[in-house]
Parts: sequence; C-alpha cells; structure tokens
Amino acid sequence: MHLFDRFSTGHMRLGRIEGFSDGVFAIVVTLLVLDFTAPVLRNASNPEELGHHLITMLPALLSWMISFIIVCKFWLNHHWALGLAAYADYGVVWLNSIFLMFQSFVPFPTDLMGRYPANPVAVSLFGIVMALNTFLFMALQSYIFKHLLKPECANERDPNGTIKALVGPLFYLIGAAVAWRCTPASFVFYIITPLFFITPPTRKTEEQATDENSRAAAS
Amino acid sequence: MHLFDRFSTGHMRLGRIEGFSDGVFAIVVTLLVLDFTAPVLRNASNPEELGHHLITMLPALLSWMISFIIVCKFWLNHHWALGLAAYADYGVVWLNSIFLMFQSFVPFPTDLMGRYPANPVAVSLFGIVMALNTFLFMALQSYIFKHLLKPECANERDPNGTIKALVGPLFYLIGAAVAWRCTPASFVFYIITPLFFITPPTRKTEEQATDENSRAAAS
Amino acid sequence: MHLFDRFSTGHMRLGRIEGFSDGVFAIVVTLLVLDFTAPVLRNASNPEELGHHLITMLPALLSWMISFIIVCKFWLNHHWALGLAAYADYGVVWLNSIFLMFQSFVPFPTDLMGRYPANPVAVSLFGIVMALNTFLFMALQSYIFKHLLKPECANERDPNGTIKALVGPLFYLIGAAVAWRCTPASFVFYIITPLFFITPPTRKTEEQATDENSRAAAS
Amino acid sequence: MHLFDRFSTGHMRLGRIEGFSDGVFAIVVTLLVLDFTAPVLRNASNPEELGHHLITMLPALLSWMISFIIVCKFWLNHHWALGLAAYADYGVVWLNSIFLMFQSFVPFPTDLMGRYPANPVAVSLFGIVMALNTFLFMALQSYIFKHLLKPECANERDPNGTIKALVGPLFYLIGAAVAWRCTPASFVFYIITPLFFITPPTRKTEEQATDENSRAAAS
Repeated sequence: MHLFDRFSTGHMRLGRIEGFSDGVFAIVVTLLVLDFTAPVLRNASNPEELGHHLITMLPALLSWMISFIIVCKFWLNHHWALGLAAYADYGVVWLNSIFLMFQSFVPFPTDLMGRYPANPVAVSLFGIVMALNTFLFMALQSYIFKHLLKPECANERDPNGTIKALVGPLFYLIGAAVAWRCTPASFVFYIITPLFFITPPTRKTEEQATDENSRAAAS
Repeated sequence: MHLFDRFSTGHMRLGRIEGFSDGVFAIVVTLLVLDFTAPVLRNASNPEELGHHLITMLPALLSWMISFIIVCKFWLNHHWALGLAAYADYGVVWLNSIFLMFQSFVPFPTDLMGRYPANPVAVSLFGIVMALNTFLFMALQSYIFKHLLKPECANERDPNGTIKALVGPLFYLIGAAVAWRCTPASFVFYIITPLFFITPPTRKTEEQATDENSRAAAS
Repeated sequence: MHLFDRFSTGHMRLGRIEGFSDGVFAIVVTLLVLDFTAPVLRNASNPEELGHHLITMLPALLSWMISFIIVCKFWLNHHWALGLAAYADYGVVWLNSIFLMFQSFVPFPTDLMGRYPANPVAVSLFGIVMALNTFLFMALQSYIFKHLLKPECANERDPNGTIKALVGPLFYLIGAAVAWRCTPASFVFYIITPLFFITPPTRKTEEQATDENSRAAAS
Repeated sequence: MHLFDRFSTGHMRLGRIEGFSDGVFAIVVTLLVLDFTAPVLRNASNPEELGHHLITMLPALLSWMISFIIVCKFWLNHHWALGLAAYADYGVVWLNSIFLMFQSFVPFPTDLMGRYPANPVAVSLFGIVMALNTFLFMALQSYIFKHLLKPECANERDPNGTIKALVGPLFYLIGAAVAWRCTPASFVFYIITPLFFITPPTRKTEEQATDENSRAAAS
C-alpha cells in the first residue's frame, strides 16, 4: 500500500523527537498534581476540618505516586529504546506519537482511580490503560529493533525479550481483573509491576560505547 | 513600510525557535486530556454508574484522538519545513508565532466538539480552526521557500505543492459545511483529511544530506 | 553585602537557562487558552444557543490574542538579550527568574480582562502587569550590558536605548489609566504598544557574527 | 540485592535528564498561577467589587511568590549538582525522578496555604513539603558526590556541607511547627530560608573549568 510505504521514508534527527517526547512526559507527570484540588472549607481556619479532608485524599495520593513512578519508568525505557536507533523514519515518528497519545491519557484514569478507589470500573481502567501503554511501547521498541537498529547495538537484542516484556501487560491486566473482586489487591499489582522494569536491560549500552568513542575522538 | 522592512532583518539560530515550538506542541497535545474530567458519582463504588458515564464520554474520546493526530501531523510537517531554512529572520519568527497561537487554540474547539458532538456550531468550528491552521502553516512554509531556503534544498520545491496543499483546508471546510446537515459525516472528513499529509513530501531530505555530510566530515 | 557579592559569582552555561525560559514562555502562551471554557448548554444540539455563547466570548478572544503577541514579543527580545551575554552569573539567573515569575502571572490578568472587559480594575491591571514585565526585562537587559556583554557585541549598546525602551511601559501605563475613562481605548493602547518592539534592535547581531565565525571555523 | 545492583548500571547522557527536569521545573512554576482564578462578579463592571476580591487574594499572591522563589532556588542548585556528575546511572535517574515527584507536588500546598493562610494545617503542610524536597535534593546530591563525581570537581566537596545543608529543612520544619502558634511567623520563616541557599556553593565551578578547557580546545 502507498500509505504504508511512505512510513519507511524520511530520515530525521532524533533530537527533536526526544525533545517533543520529553516535553510530553514532563507535562504528563506534572499535570497529575492537578488532580489534587483544595477543598472548600466551611471554617477557613479550622485545622480539624482541613486535616479530615486531607486524610480522605490519601487514595488519590497513592494513585498519583503509582502513576508518577510508571510514567518515569516509561520515560527511562523510552530513552533507552530511542538510543538504539540510528535515525528516525516516519514509521517511528508515528508509533512514537501514538504511544505519547496514550501516555498523555494517563492523568484521566489516575484521577478516576484516586477519586473512586473502591469502584471496580475506575481501578480496572487504570490497569487496562497501563497495559495498552506497555503494548504500544513494545511496538515502538520492536520497530526500532527491526528497521533502525544501530549496527553497534546488535547485541542489545535479547532472544527472550518479548516473553519478559509480556510480564508487564499481563500483570497490569491481572490487576485490572482482580479489581472486580478486591480493589486493594489491584493497587498491590500496580505497585509491584513497574519494579520489574525499573531499569532497562543492563548490558553495555550503546551510549557507553558512544561516550567511549567520543572520548577517544576527543583525545 | 518601515515595520515590514524590519522583519527581513535578524539572523537567529533555529534551535531556540524549534525548542519553543516543540514546547508549545507538546503542551497542546497534553492539555487535550484536561477535557476529560472525572464525573461526580452519587454512589462512589457503583460500577454501573461510572461505566455509564464513561460511555457518554466516547465522542470526547474520538474528538481527542482526531485532534492529537492532527497536531502531531502539524508537528511533523513543521519539523520538515524548518529543516529547509538556512536561518531565521524576524518574519519567520512572527509567522511561526501566529501559527503557534492557533495551534494553542486547538484544545478549545476539541473540547467543544467532544462535549456537543451533535451541535453544528461546535463541529463546524473544529473544521474552520483546522483549515485556518493549515493556511497559517502554508504561509510559514512558503515564506521559508521564498526567503530562507538552504541552497541544497532547492529541489524540495514541488511545482504542484500549493495545489496539493490546498486539499487539506478544502476538506476541513467541506467537513465544517457538512456539519449543518449531518455531524457524524464531519467526523469522517476530520479523520480522513490528516491521512493525506501524514508524511511530509518524501524526496531525499536535507537532513539526510546533512547527516551524510556530517558523517563525511567526521570520518 | 555578602549576599549581593555572591550574585556576581557563578559561571554557568546559557543553554540550560534558555531551555528553562523557553519552557516557561511556551507554557504561558499555551495556558492562555485554558481561559476558554466550554459553556454548559441547556440544549446540547442547539446551534443558536452555542453560537450566542461564542459571541459573548469575543472580548476573551481579543484579550487572548493581545497577550499571546506580547508574550511572543518578550520571548523574541529575551532571546536577543541573552544572546549578548558571554556567560551567566547568579545575578542574571535571579533577574531572569523574577522576570519569568511575572511572565507566568500573565494568564491571570488576561483571563480577568477577557471576562470583565468593561471593568476598569480588570483592564488597568493588565496594563500594570505588562509595564512591570517591561521594567523587569529592562533590568535584565541592562545587567547583561553592564556585567556580561560579549566583547564583540559592544556596538549593540544604543545610547538612546533606555529612553526608547521607556516608551513601552509608559504606553502600558497610559492604557491602564485610560481604563478608568473608557476601557475600549485601553485595548487600543495594548494592541499598539507591542508593535514598537516587535523586533529587537536590528544592527548586525552577535549571532550573525557567531554564525559567520562558525562557518569560517567549519571551512 | 539484585534490584539495587541494577541501579549502579546504566551509563546515560545527562542532557536528556536535564531536559526532562527543566521541563518539570518550568511547568511547576507556571502551573502555580492556575491557583488564581477569576472571581464571579455579580456586577461585571463594578470596580469596587473586583478590587475587593483582588485584595482578598493577597495571601495567595504571597504564597505564590514564596513558592516560585523556592522552586527557582531548587532549579539552580539542581543545575549545579548535575554539573558535578560525569554521567548518569539508573540510581541517579530514580533519585532525580523521586525528587521531581515532590517538586511537582508543590502547587498543591502552595494553593492550600494561599487559600487558607490562617489554617495551621495548610501552613505547616507547606513547610513539611519543602523540608521533604530539601532532604530529597540532599540525597540526590550526596549520591552524585559518592558515585558519579567528575575527577576535576573533587575540590567541590565541602566538609561542613551536610551540616550547612541541614539548616534548610530545619528552618522549614520550625516554620511548620510555628504555624500552630502564629501562622504569619511561618510565612517569615518560609521567606527567609531560601535566601541562605540562593546561590550554590561558590568556589570555582566545574563549568568554569569546562569553559576554559573548551576555549583552550577551540583556540
């Protein structure tokens, strides 16, 4: 098809894609705090009344922290994956844009789960959105591995990588399913899952190699 | 006139203009999600009530996705067009600022169309704003072609470019007109139109050339 | 004094200050659109009702456009002024931060003037804030001229610069005063004033020189 | 433990971490202004009514200014601390993310203190959040000193640094405690504390050295 052929054309600097992506990530994590709104107090200087309101916000605080950690995890892995690409074609630009679209959606299920932590629809929506984000990230990553990989990063490909990567969305989806029985259990799943992916695969990275090269070039 | 003469002066780095523009694009696409607000439930843990609310948000979801894709499309073409310029004068800075002004306006008609998907005013306003954005982008692009084109990008100019480019605003305006008969038909127009421009013109780009030059220089 | 001495120490790259400033400028201009909120319609698909609401938003639209142009003008002049500095000390960092503080304040008087365009307090507050911003920018600029000027930019200093620069705040303050007689006249002042400063002083700039140097160095 | 070992792996460019951090800082300081919302007037063109509303917003204005200065102070010290690192491992990425999480939280206690300046809970929460932010920054800084310090920055370590640094959180916590007796006294503490840290330690910095090196390299 003509449309799909066009995606493999284009030869863009990665810098502006990273700048745009970093902007979206930074705004997403910062907008999360807009979910906290100051309560309307009947007695403005009453500490008990405000203290009570703050305590009812604890689930929203937990939901915010989980989301923040997950988005930072995506940011770190995104950084790693784009570092493997030699350049960007239009295919990677659009896969990246669709991934960022659902990253930018994260504040909504976060707000919903923080507001209605005992509602199975709110809690399972959070897990479904995170699973979707992980699938989109996997698509982005395997496109880079297939079409844009720097020659010096060939040894970065992990033969069991796909199976390992599926652990993430699987756990998010189990968390989403569990919400219909016991919503606090879902929170446990959502807290544990990002810990598996808190660092990208840790063999010698291309950046290290690049740094060494650039040091060698500089000296 | 004195005022207009001053626009052709100035000789600025493109980097900071791109940084400012990328910031605006990133914020625009991320603010779109603020259109989704958590509903106020009578029974906080009732899944049916929340589920029903989420279903009524489907038009807002569709409106958000259309906008996201269109803004990413503008970002990609903006990236391409600025890549053709050898430097920036004050004329391009101001054309760029006015273009960004109406990009930053996009969240408002998106919200309106998502909230009132059966209201001809809301749906046609969306198309008019997108047509206006396309005209402003065309002005920016032809200014670059006329005054700031890098010598090595001379072959990027497409003799039929203007006619092809007019397809975009034409379709948005048809979509806007159709809203007064049948608003769902407008959605179809708004989904199809950006697909024509999903990649910039795809002959060998200057960045490819630059990359090759820089590789040659490095080796 | 010990405190003030410390400001002249420090020797920082300008890149990260520009990145932070560009971020603030980009967010300020994009947040301006949050002033437009979708009206609550009694009949969701009634075009007359929505159309009527949109017409009442015209002053807000005008207020938004004026603010957008003024902030872009500050961005362009800020870009120019920082381009004159050889490096950044802590004094320029803090003058820049205080300038950005009042730039980030701009959405509030913009919203107020757009909502209450016939209220002298709202309309004059807008002019006062813009005059204050201009004074803060002048302080930033003269600090750079006095302490951080690149040797090759010595001819950028305009002996009549301060008098010319005072035209800006003077006009904003006249606009603010006029609001107490006739608010539409203030709008005229606020539209005209930025036009005087729509381009920075246009002698040969340091960037042009730098570009020429770098081209010379590259060849 | 396996998890903690992984943190010391990774070898990333500092540029993208700075870009992401600068984005978060820029958005945090700009979102602070969203705390100011236009009042709903009964008589839209009545200057007394609007003027009276603006006067009641003075504590919010003060709260906003204090927060803005404190976040800028964190930005400047963050800039300084990252400038000491030779590269980034995953440990510094995550310490940085957790620090940014609580930076992004700042708009909430700022809003609360501005809205309820006589409520001990609101005023002391502000001090506690700022103390927490200072502790997190100290953790980030000492991690850099221990694991990632550039060899040429060895003389940046101040033997009394930790004791001096503890002055900050101590003063914020005293301010928080004082709120239960007299909230205006807390404001005084919150204004004075950042002044101690308004510039990073001011011995010859690595950037100066780097600049000199790069000048030497260029000539």
